Amino acid sequence: MERIITLTTDFGVQDHYAGTMKGVILNINRAAQIVDICHSVPSFDVLEGALTIAQAYSYFPPGTVHAVIVDPGVGSMRRPLLVETGKYFFVAPDNGVLSLVFEREERIAVRHITAGHYSLQPVSATFQGRDIFAPVAAYVSKGVAPAALGEEISDYVRFAIKAPEPVENGGLRGMVIKVDKFGNLVTNLCPRNAPALAETPPPGFRIRVGAGEVSSLKPTFAAGQPGELFALWGSMGFLEIVTNRGSAAQLLKAGKGSELVVTFA
Amino acid sequence: MERIITLTTDFGVQDHYAGTMKGVILNINRAAQIVDICHSVPSFDVLEGALTIAQAYSYFPPGTVHAVIVDPGVGSMRRPLLVETGKYFFVAPDNGVLSLVFEREERIAVRHITAGHYSLQPVSATFQGRDIFAPVAAYVSKGVAPAALGEEISDYVRFAIKAPEPVENGGLRGMVIKVDKFGNLVTNLCPRNAPALAETPPPGFRIRVGAGEVSSLKPTFAAGQPGELFALWGSMGFLEIVTNRGSAAQLLKAGKGSELVVTFA
Amino acid sequence: MERIITLTTDFGVQDHYAGTMKGVILNINRAAQIVDICHSVPSFDVLEGALTIAQAYSYFPPGTVHAVIVDPGVGSMRRPLLVETGKYFFVAPDNGVLSLVFEREERIAVRHITAGHYSLQPVSATFQGRDIFAPVAAYVSKGVAPAALGEEISDYVRFAIKAPEPVENGGLRGMVIKVDKFGNLVTNLCPRNAPALAETPPPGFRIRVGAGEVSSLKPTFAAGQPGELFALWGSMGFLEIVTNRGSAAQLLKAGKGSELVVTFA
Repeated sequence: MERIITLTTDFGVQDHYAGTMKGVILNINRAAQIVDICHSVPSFDVLEGALTIAQAYSYFPPGTVHAVIVDPGVGSMRRPLLVETGKYFFVAPDNGVLSLVFEREERIAVRHITAGHYSLQPVSATFQGRDIFAPVAAYVSKGVAPAALGEEISDYVRFAIKAPEPVENGGLRGMVIKVDKFGNLVTNLCPRNAPALAETPPPGFRIRVGAGEVSSLKPTFAAGQPGELFALWGSMGFLEIVTNRGSAAQLLKAGKGSELVVTFA
Repeated sequence: MERIITLTTDFGVQDHYAGTMKGVILNINRAAQIVDICHSVPSFDVLEGALTIAQAYSYFPPGTVHAVIVDPGVGSMRRPLLVETGKYFFVAPDNGVLSLVFEREERIAVRHITAGHYSLQPVSATFQGRDIFAPVAAYVSKGVAPAALGEEISDYVRFAIKAPEPVENGGLRGMVIKVDKFGNLVTNLCPRNAPALAETPPPGFRIRVGAGEVSSLKPTFAAGQPGELFALWGSMGFLEIVTNRGSAAQLLKAGKGSELVVTFA
Repeated sequence: MERIITLTTDFGVQDHYAGTMKGVILNINRAAQIVDICHSVPSFDVLEGALTIAQAYSYFPPGTVHAVIVDPGVGSMRRPLLVETGKYFFVAPDNGVLSLVFEREERIAVRHITAGHYSLQPVSATFQGRDIFAPVAAYVSKGVAPAALGEEISDYVRFAIKAPEPVENGGLRGMVIKVDKFGNLVTNLCPRNAPALAETPPPGFRIRVGAGEVSSLKPTFAAGQPGELFALWGSMGFLEIVTNRGSAAQLLKAGKGSELVVTFA
């Protein structure tokens, strides 16, 4: 079956890891179509892996198998999972890396992969992307029934992105959850937890973050003057602190984990 | 139709951006074959995007759709373009990123993409690679007629690479327009604007650049001694300042934008 | 023929080089399936290229054509090679980058590629990945007989990874041959040249490397405490110096080429 298998990992692009997984997949299902989503998730960063796959998965055709390998617990008792939603399959370690998928999907079946004959034997203790996740993704893409891989479970790991906290006078204390390639600061503020900022127009506000602050919200990057810092509702659904044609992270000396405080006039 | 769609962007490899575009394309044309040319164009660097696609596009099979997304003006009034040459299609923002393609192709038809039903709706103001360029590339790869996308225009943006300037005694003042992964300094000197250097052999010359100078031209990297700096006519068609098995950029403390001065004996 | 062609190069991801090779391949064999193994081999680093392809090639389906382009001698007299094993084809420069493949494969036929009509003409002196290796890989993937490419040779270049040296009291002096994306230090110790460390359990030992030392061997990354440094038999078949959820390279201030000394109690 010519199913698509996507790869989202923290394996990087400098080693053989991602390439070896592709070989394993194609050796099992020669007709699989492999699509790299991202191999540069920061090492061991389950939250960033969760953000990456959550932003991309739903754009793929029905039947796509998404392999998400950010797996600091490789070799431990953490379970390998196969997840079915109405449209997609996911293989991933049971560490929460699919949390944002779980949040968006109403009907999911989560299985603990235990069927050893769908893995490369012997399974290494340190590279289970090659030995478990790639082969399982390949077999699922070939039409192996999920039930053949293992039993359904309900106690899988899931986490929520830390919500901003209220501070005095109706303000909020949030944080930067990701810095993208352009230096845009993606925050944990969304229309649900910061509804005032989603009004049109929003009330007067200030956001202090890193070495500076912003007090305007613009609809596009291009609406800002060069060097001007401002907020923008980004394509990921979160408020971002950005600048036009530059890196807000550099200008503000801020990064992932930086605190931000929103105050309203 | 099993057309190829290539991607050349400044989206980087650390986020979901390129992966999401691939999902959009495959969801529209499951038979499209997606080929990454480069996602690491420096952020907002339209000239470097122009150089990258210009070096690669003509090696692809006829019918290939090249998507080139270096788009600092995303969300502004800059127009999305669909370009047809005799052999290829291009989708790109109207900011000059196709200038070097325009320079090489005699017959081109440039259209302003206005047909909203070939975009993802609603079109975001910040990620039109996903919402406009990827879907249009996918529909074109499926055989949608370019004329269905929008009207032909003639006032599209195009620029030329800055030519070297003459200095006293027949010399030239040029610049480094790109540093490649190996640290080779690609200059704006080409056989047309620096014909003396393209003679066999060239007359005696010196090129001052960064913290040093070179006075020899060699045919291959391997012809130089380790640590020796020299000039070479590179595979991109420009004069490059290079060294054998090392980084000329590091040795010369020079980079993109560095000035160079050629003097002849 | 729908053969797979893999690419392992030091061309990086920031330029057009890898993308241009893909165009050349698809223009010759529209049905080839191109798989990126790695383009971020350190520049000119033939040993690391050898390690990368050696770890990945055998996982691919029979008939796969592996193109391995780490080619500091491009343009010199070094020969372009086409290698056949029982299951795979390789195209690569004759500089030892296939040494670890040669070490593992019993029956190989190595040919000097001389048939110019399977190259892009004129062949440039600086980008033979585009002009020789990509087209030859494409023609081989289409079924062109290896014998049509050139004569078999036996004096091709091959090297062995430097073995550890014995030191007083049965110890060993080894080295770090690679640092992976996670900061794991891959050493030149393997069960064959360091058999005591492969015993279960091993005798008491200390390994001094960089700014520290390790004295335990664990089966998995997760078996270590955060910040603890230890040894582990890695998925590449070599002893690695690692830590749980961190970079041993950073903690030990060690890198490729660092010496390590093993002493036994």
